[in-house]
Amino acid sequence: MISMNKSKAQVLGRLLQALHKLESTPSFAKLVSEVRVNLVYALPHAESPKDVAAIDGRITVVNNQPKAAGLPRFGVSDHMARAILQIRQYRSKIRAGVNFLYNNKIADTVKEYAREKNLSYGYIDRRQEPKERQAKEGESMPWKIRYLKEQYGEIPTIFYESAGWGKEPLYVLIGKDPVAVVNHVASIAKKSSIE
Amino acid sequence: MISMNKSKAQVLGRLLQALHKLESTPSFAKLVSEVRVNLVYALPHAESPKDVAAIDGRITVVNNQPKAAGLPRFGVSDHMARAILQIRQYRSKIRAGVNFLYNNKIADTVKEYAREKNLSYGYIDRRQEPKERQAKEGESMPWKIRYLKEQYGEIPTIFYESAGWGKEPLYVLIGKDPVAVVNHVASIAKKSSIE
Amino acid sequence: MISMNKSKAQVLGRLLQALHKLESTPSFAKLVSEVRVNLVYALPHAESPKDVAAIDGRITVVNNQPKAAGLPRFGVSDHMARAILQIRQYRSKIRAGVNFLYNNKIADTVKEYAREKNLSYGYIDRRQEPKERQAKEGESMPWKIRYLKEQYGEIPTIFYESAGWGKEPLYVLIGKDPVAVVNHVASIAKKSSIE
Amino acid sequence: MISMNKSKAQVLGRLLQALHKLESTPSFAKLVSEVRVNLVYALPHAESPKDVAAIDGRITVVNNQPKAAGLPRFGVSDHMARAILQIRQYRSKIRAGVNFLYNNKIADTVKEYAREKNLSYGYIDRRQEPKERQAKEGESMPWKIRYLKEQYGEIPTIFYESAGWGKEPLYVLIGKDPVAVVNHVASIAKKSSIE
Repeated sequence: MISMNKSKAQVLGRLLQALHKLESTPSFAKLVSEVRVNLVYALPHAESPKDVAAIDGRITVVNNQPKAAGLPRFGVSDHMARAILQIRQYRSKIRAGVNFLYNNKIADTVKEYAREKNLSYGYIDRRQEPKERQAKEGESMPWKIRYLKEQYGEIPTIFYESAGWGKEPLYVLIGKDPVAVVNHVASIAKKSSIE
Repeated sequence: MISMNKSKAQVLGRLLQALHKLESTPSFAKLVSEVRVNLVYALPHAESPKDVAAIDGRITVVNNQPKAAGLPRFGVSDHMARAILQIRQYRSKIRAGVNFLYNNKIADTVKEYAREKNLSYGYIDRRQEPKERQAKEGESMPWKIRYLKEQYGEIPTIFYESAGWGKEPLYVLIGKDPVAVVNHVASIAKKSSIE
Repeated sequence: MISMNKSKAQVLGRLLQALHKLESTPSFAKLVSEVRVNLVYALPHAESPKDVAAIDGRITVVNNQPKAAGLPRFGVSDHMARAILQIRQYRSKIRAGVNFLYNNKIADTVKEYAREKNLSYGYIDRRQEPKERQAKEGESMPWKIRYLKEQYGEIPTIFYESAGWGKEPLYVLIGKDPVAVVNHVASIAKKSSIE
Repeated sequence: MISMNKSKAQVLGRLLQALHKLESTPSFAKLVSEVRVNLVYALPHAESPKDVAAIDGRITVVNNQPKAAGLPRFGVSDHMARAILQIRQYRSKIRAGVNFLYNNKIADTVKEYAREKNLSYGYIDRRQEPKERQAKEGESMPWKIRYLKEQYGEIPTIFYESAGWGKEPLYVLIGKDPVAVVNHVASIAKKSSIE
């Protein structure tokens, strides 16, 4: 029990440090997608979205700066939390992730960054998704992550989901630690704002 | 100049009153869409998004309550501001609008509410949109609003945009005044949370 | 009724414009007092604190920048609202005010600014306040404002309350309009950060 | 280095858990003092305010609820951070603290609570403070904490500083852990709102 509380505090605190970094990266505002951004960090033995900490209300743009709408908290992310939980079935050390804007211009920067840093890169072609699966709420995620595994042999560290029917295309960048994940997107944001 | 400043203050203050009402409607949290919600109010002679006040950072959900990420401000909405500007070409008295979640369950409530209150109702079938138009950034909006005019003879007070490729389906509710607009969505939210 | 609503929106909107200006003046962070800052604007015929709009939660300093904790709203200030209501008994056109940090260094800047701009300047010597009055909650304010009237013949546009027993010394700057009031304190803040 | 980062995350996360609890205690709004509230948690070997995490912008009251103005962060508290650093010279296990409103009515509740829970209780009589010391910025704190040590043989777990010249009287409650500290003040707030 004490050890679980320690783990929870550790996860919340580390997520907060990552958030400090993201909020102090003004150029990241340009990478905030329509659905806004979430930044998540799972407990070591996370089994459900309740075991994943995220930013309550997501990260939005206020006064042209990235800004958390609320505090880091467990159980406040659905989509990104389920993505990380699925990914962990194939890459068990992955515990953190962030989503951000996809468009052609950003894709050029991200691909170049992935090459430079030797990060694996992939994408999910949503047109390949069986129609009956899309219809059922919550069944898309297992398909998407399995698709990545099948296409690339391993879940890539950076991937995007192509646009779907009713779904904005989005980048996802994953890692063991939320600060490392944010360091990558902050570098991408700076690179992207120069180009 | 003084009269312009008075108009701007009037618009910001009225939008703030509408926001107070929305933030004190907990059931509205269930109507917040993935792209979050914006609430906009245009100056009487608005010509560009700079002339439309909106909520900086949009309205999100924090601690299970609707919550503005930032302050009301001019020029901080793109999509909803352009929607209102286009709509005004056909219904010049319309100056306020809000977007919210579309799904089948909510649609039943909204349609019933529209009948009860005698509000006109419609939808934009995005599949009808010419492909070459979709490709050009910012050209979708004129098409969508003209489509409503052609289908219904007038822009309906409540309408939804069906899901598009990469686009979440969304309701839009418009009116002359943001407080009246919020009163409608607050009623829909309460009705929706009971059913 | 409609005219009252218009007045309320006008007051809230004008206060919001003043707040935008204050939040975009980083040097004002150095003038935020221990009790934090409030910025108030009264309805033309204000009779009680409910008729005075202020910043809910006051203005504090986050990330070294001035930041409103909540939204402008009626009835959320006590001290500053009562100050303005009392002042209006002698200068009926005054409807706005802001408080900020007093110390010797800031006093030099404020006095110089008042001279340059030809603004009347004064102070309330709390040691002069009758003890029995201090004890009764809410009776200090009428005494303080009457004291200013008696000392200066008119309520000064800038004055400070000297430290009291259990009370931080504070500057108050008043005016007809909150944007004008904020323009003055923003100038003082910039002047103060250079010196 | 890694171990220092782990400690920092642990401190921030635990402080965040305490903040979650405080924000979900509406009755605590009545215990928020004029100078607002800070909640602090020091690193195990803290030596300066930079080693103490606190709530950026302090905790204020918005919409009648306790509300953090900003995020937990190191180095954003001065007064409460220095209080904890001084206290640790006498009670080295103390790492957390919170300040809150002092008045006669609250004092009755706090004293009764301290008796019930067997928590040591004391106060600092600021009138005893040497005048020359008060004048020097930052020299009050060592005197105040030494005064408690001398009066009570040990620093009490709950104490108040009586009103001083220019200083609001304030309660301070200390402990090893910020969640335990907040649990105490939440109990006091509930007790206080019933009586």
